[in-house]
Amino acid sequence: MDMNGFKQELQQRKELIDQHLLKYLAPEDTHPAVIHHAMHYAVFNGGKRLRPMLVLEGAALAGKKTEIAMPTACGMELIHCYSLVHDDLPAMDDDDFRRGKPTCHKVFGEANAILTGDALLTAAFELIASNAKAPGVRPEQVIRVIGEIAAAAGSRGMIGGQVMDLDAENKTIDLSTLQTLHSLKTGALFTAALRAGAILGDMNEEKLEALTSYARHFGLAFQITDDLLDIKGDQEVLGKPVGSDARNNKNTYPGLLGLEQAELMARQSIEQCIASLERFGPEADFLRRLACFTLERES
Amino acid sequence: MDMNGFKQELQQRKELIDQHLLKYLAPEDTHPAVIHHAMHYAVFNGGKRLRPMLVLEGAALAGKKTEIAMPTACGMELIHCYSLVHDDLPAMDDDDFRRGKPTCHKVFGEANAILTGDALLTAAFELIASNAKAPGVRPEQVIRVIGEIAAAAGSRGMIGGQVMDLDAENKTIDLSTLQTLHSLKTGALFTAALRAGAILGDMNEEKLEALTSYARHFGLAFQITDDLLDIKGDQEVLGKPVGSDARNNKNTYPGLLGLEQAELMARQSIEQCIASLERFGPEADFLRRLACFTLERES
Repeated sequence: MDMNGFKQELQQRKELIDQHLLKYLAPEDTHPAVIHHAMHYAVFNGGKRLRPMLVLEGAALAGKKTEIAMPTACGMELIHCYSLVHDDLPAMDDDDFRRGKPTCHKVFGEANAILTGDALLTAAFELIASNAKAPGVRPEQVIRVIGEIAAAAGSRGMIGGQVMDLDAENKTIDLSTLQTLHSLKTGALFTAALRAGAILGDMNEEKLEALTSYARHFGLAFQITDDLLDIKGDQEVLGKPVGSDARNNKNTYPGLLGLEQAELMARQSIEQCIASLERFGPEADFLRRLACFTLERES
Repeated sequence: MDMNGFKQELQQRKELIDQHLLKYLAPEDTHPAVIHHAMHYAVFNGGKRLRPMLVLEGAALAGKKTEIAMPTACGMELIHCYSLVHDDLPAMDDDDFRRGKPTCHKVFGEANAILTGDALLTAAFELIASNAKAPGVRPEQVIRVIGEIAAAAGSRGMIGGQVMDLDAENKTIDLSTLQTLHSLKTGALFTAALRAGAILGDMNEEKLEALTSYARHFGLAFQITDDLLDIKGDQEVLGKPVGSDARNNKNTYPGLLGLEQAELMARQSIEQCIASLERFGPEADFLRRLACFTLERES
């Protein structure tokens, strides 16, 4: 696989998403300015924009133009960004830096950081609802997407995973609990993203199930490689110190399984991603390459 | 006006809303249990359920059964409850008690309280989206309602008002700034509530404008009487200590205008509420009585 060519493609897709995020967010000087400044700071933080890419790819695989799903794609990124702002708070993970920059509460204070997360989450649903104006998108599809995204981001999804994560600190949990934790904390949103674009594009249920399977395995592989990068990664490329999981007594896949078994599990998950796509032709090559890239990624 | 009769009617409506809130929320023992416990604790806290009542009344004034708007009514209450949980946090107003009970973060810890607010906000949108299943409700109406509620609750609405409020602490602001602050912090959500029910009931735009005017004046009167109760109220009936605004150097209407002028302004706002309803007949009597009751309320 041509890693550099694919990195360039990811970069181009990221730039397109960034342009739309900038267009959709209220301008930085909107009154009251501090919250809108903080929202921009939290969103334009060097993120990879993986979740919006999955939304757009879902629409493309349903045979539609990716643009029809752009508001939902950007809304998913706002949900991801809100979760990072709240996760970094002193009462949660208490992180001072993210991707080499001071975290939101270090710059804007804790009260504003809490409100910034709240505002990003609220803006996400406003933006996703506005997707009903896109040509060819039916309002009932948008309603279904809002329901699925809210379920994936809520107390039985991402937030539930974060609750389990906080609860598991300084405890040893078993592999099945770790898998549940991460399937909620990161997997649910990946799955909702890919499904959202496909639903807006009116994909049939059988293909939708195949994409759901891809996203679940992708989420697992992504989390394992995240854990592996914290052990074997390059601090400069990652933009954050390595070894933080061990220092914080976090439960990780390599911690529970050993390095070799964790790497094997990541590879097997990627094989299952590829297998999930068997009913798709070359139009799913981006998802196939994305899965393989995840194994090789350096940040 | 028969105050006791109206109090009974409010109590009956509150009980109906509480029954539905209990039905819509995930059970307390849903995994992970701590967040679902905390969500129930934050929602069943003795609230008056004013916002959901306004949603239901909007649907009734559009000539529909109130039940068609119940999911949106309860969703609005979840948004209100989330905002209280976050406002009470140590980094915000740092309140240990609300309506005589320990606040969410005192019982469940700060991290869980942040996540509980996030989960209630997310659940609100899931619930409101589900309103599309109600008989006679069209998905495009639900989409419009989600857009309006998110705008009212977001950085240019309720959250913007809270940012202004935190910024105004220990400063003296002028009357026009105080009015902007409260029209965002409390008025926007009242307005979105009454409009939401009316939109779901397919009310025409002219009547919708009249209800919007009612809700704006109602929000102002409600805030002024809130300030007045903090001076003249009975601690036992209120369930919170009086005089807290003065102790916390909060900007209030009686503080800026004096007691007499503030009372006059509240009365005038209620007169404007009544005037806004002139195109409605006896079917709007609940809203008229609610406005008058707000002037006389003891908690």
